Amino acid sequence: MRVYSEEIHLSTRGEVDIIDITGDVERIVKNSGISNGIAVIFCVGSTCAISTVEYEPGLKRDIPEALERLFPRDHYYHHEETWHDGNGHSHVRATFLKPDLTVPILDGDLTLGTWQQIVFIELDVRNRDRKVIVQILGL
Amino acid sequence: MRVYSEEIHLSTRGEVDIIDITGDVERIVKNSGISNGIAVIFCVGSTCAISTVEYEPGLKRDIPEALERLFPRDHYYHHEETWHDGNGHSHVRATFLKPDLTVPILDGDLTLGTWQQIVFIELDVRNRDRKVIVQILGL
Amino acid sequence: MRVYSEEIHLSTRGEVDIIDITGDVERIVKNSGISNGIAVIFCVGSTCAISTVEYEPGLKRDIPEALERLFPRDHYYHHEETWHDGNGHSHVRATFLKPDLTVPILDGDLTLGTWQQIVFIELDVRNRDRKVIVQILGL
Repeated sequence: MRVYSEEIHLSTRGEVDIIDITGDVERIVKNSGISNGIAVIFCVGSTCAISTVEYEPGLKRDIPEALERLFPRDHYYHHEETWHDGNGHSHVRATFLKPDLTVPILDGDLTLGTWQQIVFIELDVRNRDRKVIVQILGL
Repeated sequence: MRVYSEEIHLSTRGEVDIIDITGDVERIVKNSGISNGIAVIFCVGSTCAISTVEYEPGLKRDIPEALERLFPRDHYYHHEETWHDGNGHSHVRATFLKPDLTVPILDGDLTLGTWQQIVFIELDVRNRDRKVIVQILGL
Repeated sequence: MRVYSEEIHLSTRGEVDIIDITGDVERIVKNSGISNGIAVIFCVGSTCAISTVEYEPGLKRDIPEALERLFPRDHYYHHEETWHDGNGHSHVRATFLKPDLTVPILDGDLTLGTWQQIVFIELDVRNRDRKVIVQILGL
């Protein structure tokens, strides 16, 4: 059993930038030489999230619109009293979407569906340089 | 340390079918012979999710009703422009609920509460044949 | 490769108590002696959740307010027909937020951001004694 780690670095373009990182994670799985196990994908920071989606232009608009309906940017957030940085909604969205995703690896491949991509979701209100940890455990 | 894999196959009955897969996962843990480690449960596809719930008839109605309030089926989704298949809300719901769940295994048992079952949630608008990967790592 | 387990015990103060357990998880990582791997944090029960948040007083109010907007306590839940215990919204919230979180461990440390804490979220309507399993796998 081995552990293999790599980081993905991203420069994001503000709220709500959704970036397909499937190819990066697949490359890291290959680099690991691990055939059977798991890949844990974790975004560092409290205003971002990892999930899966069919990565197509429609859903890249639908996800931000759903976030805006559920957690409106112009609602009052008490986070503002602490930092005055206008991203209270970003933090709340991140707590609901969570920063981690775990995908099985079978025979050297992630067990994703054909239309199921791994995405980094930028929830902060400005461009950010981001780090995603990919931690692979297996044989 | 070992890795053990099995698949669960499900025939789902449309939107929002919630299926208790706890017994299947427990059986796979036994088959693995692994006493201490983790079980990763992952649904293949971009319109389904894995979570936990107290599996009783009331909540089997409350979860779909909450999904409908938060992500209404008759809202306009841009996904429709790509595929015209009427399941934009299914995809958005799946991105929020996510396809993975990781449960510790201690002394051969999942560490679930008495009223905490593992469920597959069908979010697509039609019956589907589904595959759930159960990946077990441990000793 | 080794597996190391510890439990965290919490006495929670009703709905929606958000408790920072980062220090507990860090201590357990140290106790494990594992330098590279993962920590799986899992709350036992169907009315609680684990996630991450910047743990500051504003967001400790914003998260409960968002939960109340999305899953109102006074909405009618069919769960009531089964148990008459007034916590249908607690269960629905828990299914959406999920009970698990997986964080990579690199060089003996969790890969959290500076402002990213691990939290237990009490979703039930009363004080509870809670158990959180921390399962560590790695080298």
